[in-house]
Amino acid sequence: MHRTKVRIVEDALDANNTIARANRADFDRHDVSVVNLMSAPGAGKTTLLERALGPGLAGPGGAIRVGVLEGDVQGSLDADRLAGLHIPVTQLNTGNGFGGECHLDANMVRSALDALPLHEIDLLVIENVGNLVCPAEFRVGEDARAMVCSITEGEDKPMKYPLMFRACELVVINKIDLLPHLEFDLDKLLYNIDVVNPGVQRIVTSARTGEGVDELQAWLAELALRRVPTAAG
Amino acid sequence: MHRTKVRIVEDALDANNTIARANRADFDRHDVSVVNLMSAPGAGKTTLLERALGPGLAGPGGAIRVGVLEGDVQGSLDADRLAGLHIPVTQLNTGNGFGGECHLDANMVRSALDALPLHEIDLLVIENVGNLVCPAEFRVGEDARAMVCSITEGEDKPMKYPLMFRACELVVINKIDLLPHLEFDLDKLLYNIDVVNPGVQRIVTSARTGEGVDELQAWLAELALRRVPTAAG
Repeated sequence: MHRTKVRIVEDALDANNTIARANRADFDRHDVSVVNLMSAPGAGKTTLLERALGPGLAGPGGAIRVGVLEGDVQGSLDADRLAGLHIPVTQLNTGNGFGGECHLDANMVRSALDALPLHEIDLLVIENVGNLVCPAEFRVGEDARAMVCSITEGEDKPMKYPLMFRACELVVINKIDLLPHLEFDLDKLLYNIDVVNPGVQRIVTSARTGEGVDELQAWLAELALRRVPTAAG
Repeated sequence: MHRTKVRIVEDALDANNTIARANRADFDRHDVSVVNLMSAPGAGKTTLLERALGPGLAGPGGAIRVGVLEGDVQGSLDADRLAGLHIPVTQLNTGNGFGGECHLDANMVRSALDALPLHEIDLLVIENVGNLVCPAEFRVGEDARAMVCSITEGEDKPMKYPLMFRACELVVINKIDLLPHLEFDLDKLLYNIDVVNPGVQRIVTSARTGEGVDELQAWLAELALRRVPTAAG
């Protein structure tokens, strides 16, 4: 009797990674860089994007073409806010067919691929559902993960949600304009970030005043330019 | 042939409700009122509890004995902060044996029951994991659900996370001391809360200045007194 042993991997995260790789292949085919942007609710992701994705987002070779995939449990408030930027924005609701999930996963992003104009953009920003826990557990096929951390949330968040801070290549520390009005120790937050993710890149911003937004734009442009084919290429 | 038809309910939430009822029965046996306190990360739940559960929490018949069950993915930072109150505080980590879940459910709370001094308290405050999505989906055997919403999170949160705002009997609007420093319209937030949960009780607070904390204390005391046996009872 011939027996073949098949190893069944019943890990949902493995299924997720399989689909994330399929997404990645599609992004690669279109030379699109992808950033997965995460934060707690109300940390200022959308306001930062309103500031950063305006006309200022330009690389050495000209303007970088950006698209946004907006993840929300329901509604399209954030997508509506970004409409004024005149860039392609696609809404993905976890409440429609995905059980109101508290995060985006690779399969949800895959379901939106047909609606994304991948052939027209260089950079896709995926704005995840506001949540500091589960989004960090699901890769979606991105090149980089970034999180926004508002100083109004307190200095202790890296210690309470270490997986999120560890999963990211960039931590944006936002709402710095409120520093004079808070009992908040920025050095303590930076120290706590270093404890859980030593050496991770940090950018301090105020989406309201625009402070630090140029640095975020440079980071996004650098990410996009990794994939833009060169004249020689 | 005799057949018995058994209806199998394979709904995880139903299993949760079954365990929540068992928790409820244990709380009832000890005349303990229970509030499930929820919010986004950094909205100020712990600071509010530091303020509210101090010596001021007294009912008409004397001091109300309070205990806290602290829910976190990992660590005991919040429980440590409450240690100064000299009330029983029990830490429950979803990272220990519960897969790092982003919320508390009835089974997790049940696992902590033996560690709770139910015979010594009148009110149990369960501080849930910071998250505006999943905690609203899991009853744990509580009498009431309350959420804290910081004005730094923006006016749109009821529209983006309506299940959370709908699930609660009380919405605490916190960090009101920052109002002069934000572009924030309190009336718009109140309107949005009314849209998703008409008539829900609201208390406006500043955990920093103490504004409104007396109202929160009165609400907690009223909840506790529902169960304290009267002299006649």
